[in-house]
Parts: sequence; structure tokens; C-alpha cells
Amino acid sequence: MAKVSVIGATGYTGAELIKIFINHPEAEIAHITSGSAAGKRYSEVYPAFLGLCDTILTDNDYEKIADDSDAVFLCLPHGASMDAAAILRARGVKVFDLSADYRLNDPVLYEKTYKAVHKRPDTLKTAVYGLAEIFETEIKNSGLVAVPGCYPTSVLIPLIPLLLEKAIDSSVLIADCKSGVSGAGKKVTEITHFCEANEDLKPYNIFSHRHKPEIDHILKRAVGIESDIVFTPHLTPLIRGMLSTIYTRSGKQPEKLMDIWRKAYDGKPMVRIRTDGSVPCIKYVAGTPFIDIAMYKQGDNLVIVSALDNLMKGASAQAVQCFNLCMGFNIKAGLL
Amino acid sequence: MAKVSVIGATGYTGAELIKIFINHPEAEIAHITSGSAAGKRYSEVYPAFLGLCDTILTDNDYEKIADDSDAVFLCLPHGASMDAAAILRARGVKVFDLSADYRLNDPVLYEKTYKAVHKRPDTLKTAVYGLAEIFETEIKNSGLVAVPGCYPTSVLIPLIPLLLEKAIDSSVLIADCKSGVSGAGKKVTEITHFCEANEDLKPYNIFSHRHKPEIDHILKRAVGIESDIVFTPHLTPLIRGMLSTIYTRSGKQPEKLMDIWRKAYDGKPMVRIRTDGSVPCIKYVAGTPFIDIAMYKQGDNLVIVSALDNLMKGASAQAVQCFNLCMGFNIKAGLL
Amino acid sequence: MAKVSVIGATGYTGAELIKIFINHPEAEIAHITSGSAAGKRYSEVYPAFLGLCDTILTDNDYEKIADDSDAVFLCLPHGASMDAAAILRARGVKVFDLSADYRLNDPVLYEKTYKAVHKRPDTLKTAVYGLAEIFETEIKNSGLVAVPGCYPTSVLIPLIPLLLEKAIDSSVLIADCKSGVSGAGKKVTEITHFCEANEDLKPYNIFSHRHKPEIDHILKRAVGIESDIVFTPHLTPLIRGMLSTIYTRSGKQPEKLMDIWRKAYDGKPMVRIRTDGSVPCIKYVAGTPFIDIAMYKQGDNLVIVSALDNLMKGASAQAVQCFNLCMGFNIKAGLL
Amino acid sequence: MAKVSVIGATGYTGAELIKIFINHPEAEIAHITSGSAAGKRYSEVYPAFLGLCDTILTDNDYEKIADDSDAVFLCLPHGASMDAAAILRARGVKVFDLSADYRLNDPVLYEKTYKAVHKRPDTLKTAVYGLAEIFETEIKNSGLVAVPGCYPTSVLIPLIPLLLEKAIDSSVLIADCKSGVSGAGKKVTEITHFCEANEDLKPYNIFSHRHKPEIDHILKRAVGIESDIVFTPHLTPLIRGMLSTIYTRSGKQPEKLMDIWRKAYDGKPMVRIRTDGSVPCIKYVAGTPFIDIAMYKQGDNLVIVSALDNLMKGASAQAVQCFNLCMGFNIKAGLL
Repeated sequence: MAKVSVIGATGYTGAELIKIFINHPEAEIAHITSGSAAGKRYSEVYPAFLGLCDTILTDNDYEKIADDSDAVFLCLPHGASMDAAAILRARGVKVFDLSADYRLNDPVLYEKTYKAVHKRPDTLKTAVYGLAEIFETEIKNSGLVAVPGCYPTSVLIPLIPLLLEKAIDSSVLIADCKSGVSGAGKKVTEITHFCEANEDLKPYNIFSHRHKPEIDHILKRAVGIESDIVFTPHLTPLIRGMLSTIYTRSGKQPEKLMDIWRKAYDGKPMVRIRTDGSVPCIKYVAGTPFIDIAMYKQGDNLVIVSALDNLMKGASAQAVQCFNLCMGFNIKAGLL
Repeated sequence: MAKVSVIGATGYTGAELIKIFINHPEAEIAHITSGSAAGKRYSEVYPAFLGLCDTILTDNDYEKIADDSDAVFLCLPHGASMDAAAILRARGVKVFDLSADYRLNDPVLYEKTYKAVHKRPDTLKTAVYGLAEIFETEIKNSGLVAVPGCYPTSVLIPLIPLLLEKAIDSSVLIADCKSGVSGAGKKVTEITHFCEANEDLKPYNIFSHRHKPEIDHILKRAVGIESDIVFTPHLTPLIRGMLSTIYTRSGKQPEKLMDIWRKAYDGKPMVRIRTDGSVPCIKYVAGTPFIDIAMYKQGDNLVIVSALDNLMKGASAQAVQCFNLCMGFNIKAGLL
Repeated sequence: MAKVSVIGATGYTGAELIKIFINHPEAEIAHITSGSAAGKRYSEVYPAFLGLCDTILTDNDYEKIADDSDAVFLCLPHGASMDAAAILRARGVKVFDLSADYRLNDPVLYEKTYKAVHKRPDTLKTAVYGLAEIFETEIKNSGLVAVPGCYPTSVLIPLIPLLLEKAIDSSVLIADCKSGVSGAGKKVTEITHFCEANEDLKPYNIFSHRHKPEIDHILKRAVGIESDIVFTPHLTPLIRGMLSTIYTRSGKQPEKLMDIWRKAYDGKPMVRIRTDGSVPCIKYVAGTPFIDIAMYKQGDNLVIVSALDNLMKGASAQAVQCFNLCMGFNIKAGLL
Repeated sequence: MAKVSVIGATGYTGAELIKIFINHPEAEIAHITSGSAAGKRYSEVYPAFLGLCDTILTDNDYEKIADDSDAVFLCLPHGASMDAAAILRARGVKVFDLSADYRLNDPVLYEKTYKAVHKRPDTLKTAVYGLAEIFETEIKNSGLVAVPGCYPTSVLIPLIPLLLEKAIDSSVLIADCKSGVSGAGKKVTEITHFCEANEDLKPYNIFSHRHKPEIDHILKRAVGIESDIVFTPHLTPLIRGMLSTIYTRSGKQPEKLMDIWRKAYDGKPMVRIRTDGSVPCIKYVAGTPFIDIAMYKQGDNLVIVSALDNLMKGASAQAVQCFNLCMGFNIKAGLL
């Protein structure tokens, strides 16, 4: 049994990891930590876990954690993972970072995007991007995995195979993305107050969201192109889930485009290509590790729709996919 | 035109008052104030009001406000209304206080309930309880009206006439009350986070909610009985509205009980007695100044259901009802 | 006082019209009708209207209705308005049709879009398109107004002034539109079941929604261009409201584009241009006759956001705007 | 591996059973059937199940089903299970009926409650009531289990141990129960339309709900008392979950009452007694097989709160608990 620890276990992605590892057949929990709730039982913080996870939360003592863990999942705010990852890596522990700290492996772009200097540019170079279906080999051989953001996952999974085959026009990429409120995290804010978020729907951070450079950056790494995606995130009145409607152009036949997807995702159980006429939607993927994708074409206009659970394929389930790859476990272990 | 000011206009009850007074045929807004947002336009704080109320919010300069206002509505936190009301009353302004500061006109009970000494026990004695249909005469002759809490309104309106006629058993009074999230106010808290409140439903403050002594206190004032109501509030996943299911016992015929209600609320347009088989529900009253009531009987068991909008009949619309009474306006003015 | 009748008053748009006309200072209700509920009081069908509208619903006796009405609002299913409008027009009554029957004044396009022959092509030619701010003069002089669809309103209001000035690239028009569930009407269907619609979000009718030809058709009438808009409607888990995110390209400066809007909508109170940094969202417009619009630009990429209430500016409030224009009333009468 | 079949697999409780049996370590699915969708793949009806359950739905051929199954779950409308259960029992298959057909083992009471003659009064006598923690021994030895209604489960689990010990006043039993919309089933109705159910909350079937006689009937069987519970169900705007607030009286000390619960539910993992100050709520139990219970006392007034997922402990998970008991499996198998 692999021993795993979850750092910052009291946020939403941490809670999903706990839920997954309670049932993971190849792993057991070593430590779960919290900066603010150390000393409390997990089920005190999350009463839903009574009888399921009554483990005591501890402090972030990384040396102790490294001694007792084969793998560590970092659910920390941006900026806080850098040092933790470096310390843990130095002791040979595999690290899965759910923050943005290791997603952009260019310190200049990181600084520009996150308005802070990256403190571990050396470690940054060794990180792989944990888009499990795309960077499978790199992930298997890596010790530091940057788990992708939810929006980038929803956009990159459908686009990368088509761009690799030059089947769509990379100069026209528009992603209109809709996220549930859990994407904004557990922190209380005016925008996530029930009376503000419910019965509302709004775009935010138009042209300025930090997942836009992440998408372009990964398209360069994965496809080798210089893209400038138009990306508009929207906050929608539901708890979990993300739907992305992507607009591009293509001169290829629909069946040809579908073949590219089929070939790319053959044997990848978390990507479900909808060919049965059903349209991807949040209801079908909420609470699951799947990303559903489908496409629609009229003339050269191509509309791609993807749906995933922002806390699962968009965060914790994808982290566990990467963990399964790294450890040589079945990719579905603990997830299906 | 009466000149009205709203103090603490940026909370939910303040916003409802602004909405009402924009359209009130007999009143115009003199000042609107905010402790935290003074200097801003109201529509900056509430972009929904763009073009409807672009007035600049000012500080709480009560002397200036008193000079320019016939009536002032206090939408302040509990404890903060005491002094404001006293200053304004001293200058002859009519005051409608939406906090709890003047609801319990017994300083000892106030202190016990709110864990704070009442600073203006003299003014407290002059306050009337603004349950508009019950204390109509007192309200007309008063200068200081304590606008009732939302839960007490939903329970007292159906119960008082029946208790006055000794038609129900005052020793068995159980109120199971369900409130929308706006009842918890605009402040951001963990409990009002969309991801916590949505798809949830929970009781809170069982046996310890401050509206329980308010209900018993007013039953004593209105009916002269010593009651000990069992009162359980619940937080429900909707924005605005309140439904109360009240359990008591009665040996009287249903038609007799209905007659008591009909007589009590004849000519009171905000109380709608449902005799058409439709059951009171939140949908029918949300956004309106109504309280809908109905009753159901089997043997001696009597179930009473009431529904109102917690921000309207449960707060701001009732405040304006009282204002209309005080000023001699039509009771419906600005409300229907 | 103008006498108005509402045909098919028990659907959602009918209910909004009743709500508006209860308070309209220049109009009074003559008849309200229902095919299925004739003989019942309106408040029996909609218990929320108890004490507000207890009028008896009658049959669709158009001759009687014509005798007693100055204006008639048709809230009928597509296909059912054609004859009704023709009969009423023949008797000189002003008609406001909320169905799609008179929106496409080309019988061939109508047939292609609605898979049915238009039975009154002669009357069709006389109909004007009730986009109140754009076709103001035609509406004033008309007796038959086709009230626009909700999606077209949300897309056309921001686009038409910019296209008239050739300020944006008409060959790149993408509208990603999100609608509340009331847009699907009152009929019970699997898709509108609470357990299906809640916590879900999905696109539907991709490349096949009937509002796509309506948008292109009106762009031709209003601007004289041949467009081929990419239009993707989405069903979102909220009751009322619509948000459209529109993607196009422009070489003009943002301030120049804003000036075009300002000039076009100067003195049009229902169009609110957001220049204060606040982003249009459903919360700000739900329950109001407003459409809020804003734009965001980076390089040549232009993102336009519009928000409206699909039952108000997207249907009934816009119908009343047209009525106010036709009758010479203040455009705001009954609406603000 | 036990072979199980699910009859009427396309309703909500059927879907939950499929979800459970996909992961049940001791069981595999033999047949899944549907009256209306036979011939389709399950994932065509429920696209969420793509890749998880693509089994073809078959007709209700009970002889074939009996041949291939060790246990059969009936998710049929009331009235339709009677014959199916009798046929299957005659062939020795264990039957778990999620309808109400076998809950009241008194044909007279059945007829009075369901307005229909029970066609299999002989089989009815052999049925046990599948309240898993209460009738454990009977269930183990039975071949026909009537899975309890959701409301009765939420009320009986907390009450039975206290009534058995005569610790509460059985003449004062009031259950104010709040259910999510999925309790009304998958059928489309006006009451479950998103625009009606959302932002609403209403009581229904006051004094006339069929779960009221079920509760009294089981109290007689389990405790031997003649009760007359006051039971008010409410429809609340959430998908899944049920919260019951129960009012009774007791002269016993709280700790004494808690001891009764602790003793009764020691070693019963699906009953979680909340002693940590957290209040039972829907969020903690949604999607789980748990029922959470807690109590609050002031004077002799006792308030009991229970929470469960109406589709899980209130239906399918409880059915699987009974199945696990019958088959000698771990009670948690497939559920935790």
C-alpha cells in the first residue's frame, strides 16, 4: 500500500482527495494537515466525514511527512507550494501540486501572471504538467506533477489532438467557459454568498484570468504553436461542474475530426467522446473523474463542448490519475 | 411629499426600502447613509440600481438627517439603533427601527436576550411593536416603531387572533419555521457560502434563537398570556421567503376558527387567508408585502401554515406599512 | 385609459403582462383569456395573484375581445397567433404578438424555420419587429408588432449600432447565450424537471435553434448585411434571466465603440450601458425591463456581454414598451 | 457473486441501485428492465452511465429473470409490485420491493390507504419491513422485504428505541419533514417544474399523506403502541435529501435518552448519532447511506432531528442493506 499525505486537507480539493483515498485500493492515508485546524479531527471540520475519516489533522511538518509518505498532495494557495514541493522532492517523495506554482515552467511567465517571483526556478524546471492523457509518459517518470487548472483541462483535452493534427485553425480559438461556484474555493467572499451567486450568472476576469496564459503555455509545450486564445470564464449557480463551449474553424469533415479524437483517446477511460447524440452536460459528469467531449459542425464553423467536474477531473481526480500513473497502478484505481 | 431617510441603506433590508421608496407616491428620499460606503453612489454598491437610484451615500450625521427628514428608517445592527433612535426622536422625527433594539420593551429581558445592557431604557418604553395589523392604533399614535422580526411576524399574525378568542390551547405552541438565506443578512459567513447553503437544509439555534423570547413577549403584550413556544428555525436553500408550520390543539370547529381570522383581518389587505384550497407557499409571496395563512385540522390537532417574504412583510414592507399608518397614508401606498 | 386584453394569459409571459398592467397608469385590463382554464379566476390558476387579479378567464372570442379592447397581447404558441392577429387587425385593434408568427416577414423563411406554411402572408407583410429601441418609428406607426425573441433581443441590441457604423467585423459573429429555465415555458417536460435542470448546465439546439435565422433576418432588415451568426443557446439552472457573451473583432478603439453605443442609446432608458466597471449579470436585471450591455477589448478581439430578463425585456416588458410607443404613452409607463 | 436484477431500472431509485451494484464487491447485475425503454442501452436513457453501465434494458420477463437471479429489486409504481413479487417468490428468488405494496401487512389498511384491493394478501403476510437496524433478524430470515418509505425511515429510526423504552410521550408525536424534489420521482409534473419548485418551499398532503399510516402501523409492529402521529411533509428546493424535525415530550434526562440511542445503534454503522455539537443536515448525508440523528431538550420539550438521503437510506441504500443482511454479506458492502 502506498502511503499518501494531503497537505491543506480542509479545502474543497483536499476533501475530494480524502474521499478518494478512503476507497483507494492501493493507497492509505499517512498524514492530513491543516494550517488553521491542526489538532482537530477531520470530521469536526467536515461533519460529513463522521465515521469515514476521523483522523487528527496535523501541522505542516514536512520532514516528518516526508519520512512517512510515498506521495504527497499539496492543496495549498498559490505561492505556498513552491517551498513545500522543493523540500519534499529533496527527500525523494513524489509530489502532486494542485496549486498553480508549477504549471508554468517559465519563471518569467510565472512572475508576469502571478505577480510574484518564483522562489524555486530550479525545481520548476523538473515539474511536468499533469494533464494525464496528454503527458502520460512524462508523468510516469516524474516526481513533481503540476496538476492542471480546471479551465485549462476542459479546453486542452478537446483541442490538443485536433491541433496536433493541424485539423483546426489555431488562429481562431475562443473558449466560453462556465464554472460552478466551488471553483472559487471555500473562502467566504461576497461573490460566493448564496444570495449573490444563486439565480445569477456572470462573466468575470474577461481577458485577465490566469488560466488564459496557462492554456497558451501548454499549447506551446504540447503542440508547438503560439496561440492567443480568447477565454471568458463565467460563474454559474451550481456547486460543482464546468462546461466549456469552444469555437474554432476547420475545413475537415466531421468524421475525420472525430477519428482524431478517437485515436487520441482510445484506451483513456476518463475521456468520454459523446457520439450517441447526447450533449455533454454537467449533470453527466458531476462527482465523476470523466471529461465528456463532443463536437458540432456547420460549414467551417466548429463548436466543441466539454464537461467535467471542476473538483474531480478539474483537480483531485486528475491528481489521483497522475498518482496512479507514477506509482504504476491501474489508472482507474480509486476513481471508478 | 414626506421626506424619508434610510440609515444603513446597503444591507438587504435597506435595499428593499430604497426599492419601495423609489415608487412610493407619497414619499421621497432625503438621505441614504452607509457607515462603510459613504461617498459612493448607491448604484455603485448595488449595480442593479443604475438609473434607478444613483444618489450619493452619506455619513450618519443624525442632526442633518433629522433636519431634512420626516421619517427615518434604521437598518442598523442590533445595539446600534438605540442611540440613533433616541437622537432622532428628540428632534421629533418619526423612527422605524428594523433592528431588535426596541422590540422587547423590558430592559431586563432585552439584556438577557441580547447579552448587552439597553442604553436607552427611557426611549424603550415609548416604542410600539410594529406588527401592523395587530397594533394599528398604537402605531398610528407613535413616533418610534420597532419593526418586528421576520419569524415573529410569521408566527404572531396567525396565532394572536386565535389566542385572543381562547380558541386554541396556548400550552401547546410549536413553530417549525423555514427561512431563505437572505434572512442571515448580507455579511459573508461560512453558513451562507453558496456551496454550503445550496442543496442543504438545516435547523439552527434550536431552543436558543432570540426570536423565541420576542414571540412570547409579544404574546404577553397582545394577548396577556404566559407562553413558552417551542420554536425551531431552519435555513433553507432559497434567497427570500419564510414558511412557518405551526402545531397546536383546538376543540373548536374549523369554520369557527376561520371566522375568527376573517373577522380579525377583514380590511387588512396584507393578510391573505387562503380559503381556496391552495396552500401557502413561498412562491406566492416572494417579492410581495403579503402574509398568506391557512389552517388544517384533524381531530383536535391543528396545523397552521403561514408564508411571507422575510425582507418584505418580514422587514421592509412591514416598516413601510407602519410608516403609512403613522403618516395617515393609504396602507397600500408604495406596496401594491 | 387604454383597454388591453391578454390572450393566453396563463403562460409565463401572460403572467408578466398581468403583473405589469395591474400597475400600468394608462391602461386597464379588459379581457384575459385561456384555452384551458376559461371560467376560472386568474388567482385560482396563479394563487400568487389572490387579491391582485381575481378576474375570470374567458374563451378566445376575438370579436368580443376586439369590441372591448384598444390593444391585444397574444401569448399563444407559435402557429396560433396568425389567425388571431389577422382577425383583430381587421377590426382595427392594435396587436402585440409574443409568438414567433410575425417575426420573420418572409413566408419562405418562416416555412423553412417553423416547418409550417404561414397562413396570413398578407398580414405578415404589415408586421413590424418590436425591438423597441431600434424600430421605434415603425412601431409607433404600426398596428401589428411582432415582439422579438429573448435571444435575438440580447444579441441585436448590442450589435446593431456597431454594425450600422461598420465598426465590427460582420463575418465573425459568435453568440454564446445562457438562458434561465423559464425560457422553456410553463409546459412540463423532462428537461425542465427540477432534478434534471438544477445543478446542471447544457447547450442545446446547437446550429439548429430557430432564433439563429431570426437574428440574421433582422440584421439584414436593420443593417442590410448578410450575416451567418454562430449561435449557441445554453440552459442554465436559474428561473429567469439571460446572459449573452458575444465574440467579434474590431480594429476600432474601445472609446470609439462606446461612443457608438452611447449615441445609439441616448435617451433610451431600458438600455443601460455599463461604464462603471461592473459587469452585466443576471442579478442586476432580473425582474426589470432593462438590458445591460458592456464591452471588453484586447487587440482586435472584442467581447460584448449583455444581460436581460427573458420574461421582461426578452418578452413582456418589451411588448409593453412597444404598446407605450404605439399609444403615445411614456416609454417607462408601467415598467419602472 | 450474487446475481441481482433491477426491475424498473430507469426511475431514480433504480438508477441508485445500478450505481451501487456497479461497485458492490459481492454482487453482479443479471438483468435490468424497463417497461418503456426495453431494448435501449442503460446509458442511452441515463447518459451519465456511459462506460459505466451500457447494459441493454430488457422486458419484465419474470420467469427468465427468476432463473438468472438470486435477488431481485422491484422499483415499480405502487400496485405493480404485488404480482411480480409473488411470481418471483414462488420461484425462490429473494425480493426487495421499493414500492409501498408490502409495507402495510394488513390488507384492510392497505386498501384504505392506497384505495385499491391488495391482490396478494397471502404473500403480504410473509413480507418483512426492511427498516434494517430495527428488523434485522426478520430481514435475515426473509425472502420478501418491503423497503420502507423515506419519510417513515427518517421518523422511525430515531423514535423506535425511545418508545420501546417508554422514554418519550407517545401521545405527542409531531413530525415536520422536509424532502428534496427527487422524492416526487422522475415523472414530469407541474409541481416538479424547475420554475415552480426552485425558490419555493411548501407543505403538501397535510393530514393525508400515505406515509402517516405507515409510520403508525410500524410503530404498532415494532413497539406495540397505538399512535396517531401528526405528520407534515414539505417539498423543498433541493434535489436529494430529507430532514425531519420531530417534536415530542420526555421527563427523562438528555443523557439517559442518548444512552438509549447509543445502545440501540451500537454496531449499526449507517446510524450516526451526532454528539459533537454538529446538527444533522442534508449536506452531511446526501449521496451516502447514513441517517444522522441528534436531539435537543429544554424542560420536557424534546426536539429530535434526523437527516438522510431519500434515494439512499430512504430507498436504494436501505434496500441493499437488507440484501446484505439476507445474503450474509457485510452490512457495508457496496455502500461505504
